[in-house]
Amino acid sequence: MCQLLGMNCNVPTDICFSFTGFQARGGATDVHADGWGIAFFEGRGCRLFLDPQASSTSPLAELVRHYPIRSKNVIAHIRKATQGAVGLENTHPFMREHWGRYWVFAHNGNLSGFAPVLDGACQPVGQTDSERAFCWLLQNLRQRFGHEEPDSARLFAAIHQLTLAISRHGEFNFLLANGDWLFAHASTRLSYVVRQAPFQEAHLSDQDVTVDFSALTTADDRVAVIATLPLTDNEAWVDMPAGTLWWFAEGAPVQTLTTVAGPPPQVKN
Amino acid sequence: MCQLLGMNCNVPTDICFSFTGFQARGGATDVHADGWGIAFFEGRGCRLFLDPQASSTSPLAELVRHYPIRSKNVIAHIRKATQGAVGLENTHPFMREHWGRYWVFAHNGNLSGFAPVLDGACQPVGQTDSERAFCWLLQNLRQRFGHEEPDSARLFAAIHQLTLAISRHGEFNFLLANGDWLFAHASTRLSYVVRQAPFQEAHLSDQDVTVDFSALTTADDRVAVIATLPLTDNEAWVDMPAGTLWWFAEGAPVQTLTTVAGPPPQVKN
Repeated sequence: MCQLLGMNCNVPTDICFSFTGFQARGGATDVHADGWGIAFFEGRGCRLFLDPQASSTSPLAELVRHYPIRSKNVIAHIRKATQGAVGLENTHPFMREHWGRYWVFAHNGNLSGFAPVLDGACQPVGQTDSERAFCWLLQNLRQRFGHEEPDSARLFAAIHQLTLAISRHGEFNFLLANGDWLFAHASTRLSYVVRQAPFQEAHLSDQDVTVDFSALTTADDRVAVIATLPLTDNEAWVDMPAGTLWWFAEGAPVQTLTTVAGPPPQVKN
Repeated sequence: MCQLLGMNCNVPTDICFSFTGFQARGGATDVHADGWGIAFFEGRGCRLFLDPQASSTSPLAELVRHYPIRSKNVIAHIRKATQGAVGLENTHPFMREHWGRYWVFAHNGNLSGFAPVLDGACQPVGQTDSERAFCWLLQNLRQRFGHEEPDSARLFAAIHQLTLAISRHGEFNFLLANGDWLFAHASTRLSYVVRQAPFQEAHLSDQDVTVDFSALTTADDRVAVIATLPLTDNEAWVDMPAGTLWWFAEGAPVQTLTTVAGPPPQVKN
């Protein structure tokens, strides 16, 4: 399986520290060596770095690790191929323009028998189940709302319904962002931490690297980091229960909806 | 105005040498300091590097200059802003998925009063005349051919008609690529060179750098490089007459159509 990393903030923040631990999982401390990618929103623009080689040995990943790109929304992915060959066209995150903004999507899991009819408005370029799910999701949002973007509550409700439909096909952990919001689905496994004042030191799980956030931040900063597995070993990561869809904005969870039967989860923040 | 650089080849080739001269024009040997970008097709996939700062001082441009990404189709652009603020969302090249492949577009020029009705299938994210023209072009291809990609001759004829329509609004030098083909419109100024056996030494105009292509190539390689101004001072660059639309494939011009009244140009190769 793959690994996901997301960041949603209330001020543009660099992800160098978290990416340092994440990058090591792509072939060094873990086995996800079939490519990696990262998308940074900067205002309405989006930078997407993709590399079909292991992140632990990628010159591009070294650049991303050292080049402080400040962003309010980031999605990164390291790949262990399940469906679709190793290659650039199958490397996450995927990006499309929709309603005059960029949307970015990355998936961890495996969907079986997911072969929906696509109307051509958004078509996969590669062969992954993941890109197919992203295209189908955007197609359905367009069919539902036309060319006008709905308000955020209606959008989240629609993403919830579509997530339920796709989840019937298998494991569907995903991160989805449009520059303002980050949506995260914990199908089986996902965690998050919110960093805010008083900021403290954090120490990576995958490498012996420590950062003192109190020296790098202001009192109003708030940063949510979402990852398949906690990236640090001394912070209060929250386990996101299997079967929950989360909407993050301005560095914190806004709303959570369940995607399995049972009581809705408590948002801890 | 901006500067364009394109490459179309019959085998995946790195653009490090040509990009070295081109990069210098972004703030060092020339004034195009409002951002730069480059797109590399690799199979069906596409890597897009964008930076809203001057290419001559960009760490990302340094990486691209030294990291030999092999591609059959490349489009690069350095920007001198005319319409749209300096910012990532206004940085060329622009990329969209269309007919299940990526399309990439970069423009040099200025379109005045170009405010077409867009149906929402492809919408600009930024504020440039260039992205608007790209969206309108894709929209019209979709309206004309539906969700089925036409054969290449019909596609080129359609791009020709749409180029004529947009050109009425002003200077419209552009490069457009879909992974297989590269289309180049010389509205006012564009040149190309075809490198093929017997390969020789080439020397950059903008920097004292020489490369001996005979040591880096095989006898069957063929590479077309297209640029706003010739990048080398000892090769036979062909001036592309103002008002000509070119279709490049496998490293050579395939067809040329005029976009002004008068006799069609001679393809020299």
